[in-house]
Amino acid sequence: MGRLSELFEPETVAVIGATDRKGAVGRAILENLSSGFAGEVVPINPNRETVLGYECYPDVESAPSVDLAVVIVPPPVVLQTLREIGESGTEHVVVITAGFGETGGEGAERERELREIAEEYDLNVVGPNSLGIMSTPVGMNATFGPEHALEGSISFMSQSGAFITAVLDWANDQQIGFRDVVSLGNKSVLEETDFVREWGDDSETDVIIGYLEDIEAGDEFIRVARSVTDETPIVLVKSGRTDAGAHAASSHTGAIAGSERAYETGLQQAGVLRAQSVQELFDYARALSGLPAPESGDVAVVTNAGGPGVLTTDAVGDSTLEMASLTEETVAALSESMPDEANVYNPIDIIGDADVDRFGEALDTALSDPNVGSAVVVSAPTAVLTYDDLAEVVIETRERHGKPVVTSMMGGKRARAAEEALRESGIPNYFDPARAVSGLDALARYRDVRERTRDEPEAFDVDRERARKILERAKSRPGNQLGIESMDLLEAYGVPTPNGSVVDDPADARELAESIDGDVVMKIASPEIAHKSDIGGVKVGVPDAEVYDAYEDLIARARNYQPDAGILGVQVQEMLDLDDSTETILGVNRDPQFGPLLLFGLGGIFVEILEDTSVRVAPIGESEARDMIDDVKASPLLAGARGREPANTDAVVEAIQRLSQLVTDFPAILELDINPLVAGPTNAQAIDLVVTVDTEKL
Amino acid sequence: MGRLSELFEPETVAVIGATDRKGAVGRAILENLSSGFAGEVVPINPNRETVLGYECYPDVESAPSVDLAVVIVPPPVVLQTLREIGESGTEHVVVITAGFGETGGEGAERERELREIAEEYDLNVVGPNSLGIMSTPVGMNATFGPEHALEGSISFMSQSGAFITAVLDWANDQQIGFRDVVSLGNKSVLEETDFVREWGDDSETDVIIGYLEDIEAGDEFIRVARSVTDETPIVLVKSGRTDAGAHAASSHTGAIAGSERAYETGLQQAGVLRAQSVQELFDYARALSGLPAPESGDVAVVTNAGGPGVLTTDAVGDSTLEMASLTEETVAALSESMPDEANVYNPIDIIGDADVDRFGEALDTALSDPNVGSAVVVSAPTAVLTYDDLAEVVIETRERHGKPVVTSMMGGKRARAAEEALRESGIPNYFDPARAVSGLDALARYRDVRERTRDEPEAFDVDRERARKILERAKSRPGNQLGIESMDLLEAYGVPTPNGSVVDDPADARELAESIDGDVVMKIASPEIAHKSDIGGVKVGVPDAEVYDAYEDLIARARNYQPDAGILGVQVQEMLDLDDSTETILGVNRDPQFGPLLLFGLGGIFVEILEDTSVRVAPIGESEARDMIDDVKASPLLAGARGREPANTDAVVEAIQRLSQLVTDFPAILELDINPLVAGPTNAQAIDLVVTVDTEKL
Repeated sequence: MGRLSELFEPETVAVIGATDRKGAVGRAILENLSSGFAGEVVPINPNRETVLGYECYPDVESAPSVDLAVVIVPPPVVLQTLREIGESGTEHVVVITAGFGETGGEGAERERELREIAEEYDLNVVGPNSLGIMSTPVGMNATFGPEHALEGSISFMSQSGAFITAVLDWANDQQIGFRDVVSLGNKSVLEETDFVREWGDDSETDVIIGYLEDIEAGDEFIRVARSVTDETPIVLVKSGRTDAGAHAASSHTGAIAGSERAYETGLQQAGVLRAQSVQELFDYARALSGLPAPESGDVAVVTNAGGPGVLTTDAVGDSTLEMASLTEETVAALSESMPDEANVYNPIDIIGDADVDRFGEALDTALSDPNVGSAVVVSAPTAVLTYDDLAEVVIETRERHGKPVVTSMMGGKRARAAEEALRESGIPNYFDPARAVSGLDALARYRDVRERTRDEPEAFDVDRERARKILERAKSRPGNQLGIESMDLLEAYGVPTPNGSVVDDPADARELAESIDGDVVMKIASPEIAHKSDIGGVKVGVPDAEVYDAYEDLIARARNYQPDAGILGVQVQEMLDLDDSTETILGVNRDPQFGPLLLFGLGGIFVEILEDTSVRVAPIGESEARDMIDDVKASPLLAGARGREPANTDAVVEAIQRLSQLVTDFPAILELDINPLVAGPTNAQAIDLVVTVDTEKL
Repeated sequence: MGRLSELFEPETVAVIGATDRKGAVGRAILENLSSGFAGEVVPINPNRETVLGYECYPDVESAPSVDLAVVIVPPPVVLQTLREIGESGTEHVVVITAGFGETGGEGAERERELREIAEEYDLNVVGPNSLGIMSTPVGMNATFGPEHALEGSISFMSQSGAFITAVLDWANDQQIGFRDVVSLGNKSVLEETDFVREWGDDSETDVIIGYLEDIEAGDEFIRVARSVTDETPIVLVKSGRTDAGAHAASSHTGAIAGSERAYETGLQQAGVLRAQSVQELFDYARALSGLPAPESGDVAVVTNAGGPGVLTTDAVGDSTLEMASLTEETVAALSESMPDEANVYNPIDIIGDADVDRFGEALDTALSDPNVGSAVVVSAPTAVLTYDDLAEVVIETRERHGKPVVTSMMGGKRARAAEEALRESGIPNYFDPARAVSGLDALARYRDVRERTRDEPEAFDVDRERARKILERAKSRPGNQLGIESMDLLEAYGVPTPNGSVVDDPADARELAESIDGDVVMKIASPEIAHKSDIGGVKVGVPDAEVYDAYEDLIARARNYQPDAGILGVQVQEMLDLDDSTETILGVNRDPQFGPLLLFGLGGIFVEILEDTSVRVAPIGESEARDMIDDVKASPLLAGARGREPANTDAVVEAIQRLSQLVTDFPAILELDINPLVAGPTNAQAIDLVVTVDTEKL
């Protein structure tokens, strides 16, 4: 695959299907390209000699070779055109034409072929069903949208072309500029991950933003985004968050639903900031593109307006930020320089008669405080304050200190000129103080992304071959499901289990029980019998002498309850001391986009009624495993709440990591539930297991 | 107290402290009054003969009598001026002067006197420390702010004057108009509840909005707002929501912190819609002032843009609204009239080449559907769509159907003219579809407020006198606290308790035990020993024969553990069958603003670790008591989750109501905890009790 940067910086662009027919897409693109683009434009259309004054070529073969081809020909001709492009040596293509996967049937087949051709000729294809692409540094607008983008440092991709046209019209009004803009279309060849990688490598892109309805290769996306976000922030609106939205997204672009929980954790693990709305997307992007991230997370608020100051403080309380606690020196300096009625604690209220000089002095003092990492300047209009002058002072003071500052100069017309000056120096101004804080919050959250611990998944010493053999047993089991008889799968990966195993003879059961200290627990081993306790299929505290009879009784119960069930025997297991122990649940589901999704929670009602669980996309390292425990609201129970001895959470953390390794090693594991994993003061042991295997993948 | 409407519709206004000195507040107010006000303006100042061309009077006595006096004289002169105003017969006063309660000390004393004078002369005083008031119907701007408000149907109060100036400048830009505007200042005499009542009676006020930092008489506010919201929606920003914000609010206006939970439930019980930010306040207000509430809650989305359509659907999923499920007839009609590629299910995507006619037809069909109560029209700019025309069609179609419609015509300049036409016909347009949905959500939530069940608190047959006598015992108890020995307090109000009582002699204990069926539970009765079980102070399942010895053992343990503790004896209680029972907690705290705050939750970790509780301001009726149970996330446990027999929730509901009656009858009860209230399949019984009494209030 050629470097994508050539896609955005072509010297020559062919428009295949160019026309001067009014209202035609082939005209709109040519018009957009003819305005501002520094390179050469080559229209191709067998029926014209010239188009809009350009010399027109009948086909790709006879035209000069180009860096980028934009394809607008009718659907049935697209594939042949792509082959011709491939033969000509052109590497980059944007397919505007619709009528592919999004229509199903014939279109889907056509898209499959398109992908094959792209692979054959090593073509970088955007689309099909794309609005086109733009790149402001070379003045290229190869879209059929009504607006050109302004220059800027935000690179923007969207799975919806309409989203781009809607945003550009508004962004031009707001003077928000872009670097590259891509309408992803059906993402047949090039997809979000390719552009994240490309823009991550592009030193001129300050922020990557996007509107996505799905992420097909979630695991690859996480890998790439994780590394890109070390240098460049990514903000995404991923729609289809709600059930209704997911349904709508799937009928819009045929996006595979996938699980919102997987997206939520996947994007977070990737270091992506997720915006909930268009407004939030740009509130974040404006702050991230213009300002440095704060070194500390604490915020000073400087205001001439008490009420708005309180509102700003509330917004800080709602965010991940905290109000800075000012040093004694700062308080003393403010007391000295501010009027008596001022509040010299944070929020710093320099009261209604504050002029620009007082604002400048207060902001300077606040930003000099080592506890202050960033500031919000909030102002209401007064007779003694000119917003234009205030903007000047804020810009100068901010630059001198190098710390991020956002403003909420509240007002309408009065704020306009100030807003423009602030914008030009990278400071976003918001009418609503809550939005100003949200911009600052994005900066602090991105700092946290960059500073996050990223321990690699630990490679435990495991017996992979043994595990594979155990999983193969599933081939002969109903529903390809393994149960309690396969606890040795966990042993192979070092997840502790109690002493014991499944036997299929009462004498063996007795012999096994005698080898185990104390009484034993006995359970029917049958993958087809789901609720063993309900039919008396579990016996607790059986003394060795009663094991033989208990075995026969359990088998009889099982036969009686479900005569056709396959019975593997009886599990005889060491009895655990459950005092001071907590039942937890550890499971895995395979998400269509993100792969293995680990789930952790406390047993019983905590999972079933309170849905108090945490998830992560595997593989994960130690700190993420620990976060999974901390994310569960009931986790203080493990730490020894209510007078109990604390559980050994390190053992739980290790069990989670070992399970992460198991499901990463074996994509054949579709679902796995350890229920319960008993966490006690010394260790964590798996007591029961259900595994569903895709035996084709073994 | 005279009718407040005269405050807003005076024919004559005196400005006491009027001046023509540049930059003076007394000049700014006179200037504002001289522009647009239909009535007569009377400046008063002993040092001038004329001010700004008006004839000036030396004092109140010599001036013509007026309907409203605005006071700007220095703080020390304010009180005398108020007396003169009172003597003159004027009823309405706005005190602009600052230097009262907000400065503490002398100022607070001055404010106390101000309140006395107001009472003596029956004066309606706004302020002190107020920006002033406005009333657009009579063109009166009696503030010293820089902006006049536009005419409209929103009445607006604010505890922050700066908030008013900040909002007005912006609102004028957005063409948002107001009816009355009040800067509440220190709320020394007139407070939020007075204006809510006044505007509730005013047929021209469509929406009441406000910025508040505290509500002093929360209980009265709930009572008044509850009735006003039957006719007129109230939207409030109550700041100080977060700990940091509450701290800031208290240093800003000296607002009493109060509990955010009390505000949250109190405002909700009052039917107030609470906005989290300035933007949300006006997003709500714009929808509520221009559109009718929907009759059903379900929403149709009509769009030419797939992506924004999905985003809108997500926003609906986030709100209290639901996406309408279209009838077969609607789907058939849309299939007939829309192109094949359109999505005729909801969101209705009429695709990118939709013109105004197609929008009109789709919206008309959607609004004809009985399942559709409201609609959002979402559009991206295209070559075939003119927003102005679209606005016209939306306005006409909406009016014909009478159902509320909001729009998100996405774009910048392109949307401006359309926005204005929409606004004039009451339809708010928002760039962000999520904000459009939030406007619609406000309408639906207000409909729910109007339709809510408002059962009056039930008056159970109780023994109030007996309860009073029991509470009086607290006078002689350390910390004025009653404990388990006072379970008869609950009996007096009909909250079931197990058989038993406190005895102070082992023989009595035995006699009591014999009168109770089965074994008994025995507990140390001492308000000074908090954790009885920890010192072995509770014995469960004591047979009658062992009661005598058990009594002596318990007393010995208590003496041994805490020799100086007052011991009332031992409680001997019937043993409850706790199978299928659930421990709950029922409590009361007295909030400084809202009074008795009832709290309900499930016992143990549910309250202590998961903080899974619900609260309501007492008194409450049956449906609110039931909501308290449903609001608790773990409540399915009561309904018989995990194979248990369901608890008798009716009995819990009744216990909550009886407790509500008890704490309403006795303001002397500061805190009360029933822990646990055991909810079983047949009844709910209080097992233990702690009550703290303000004995002065008995």
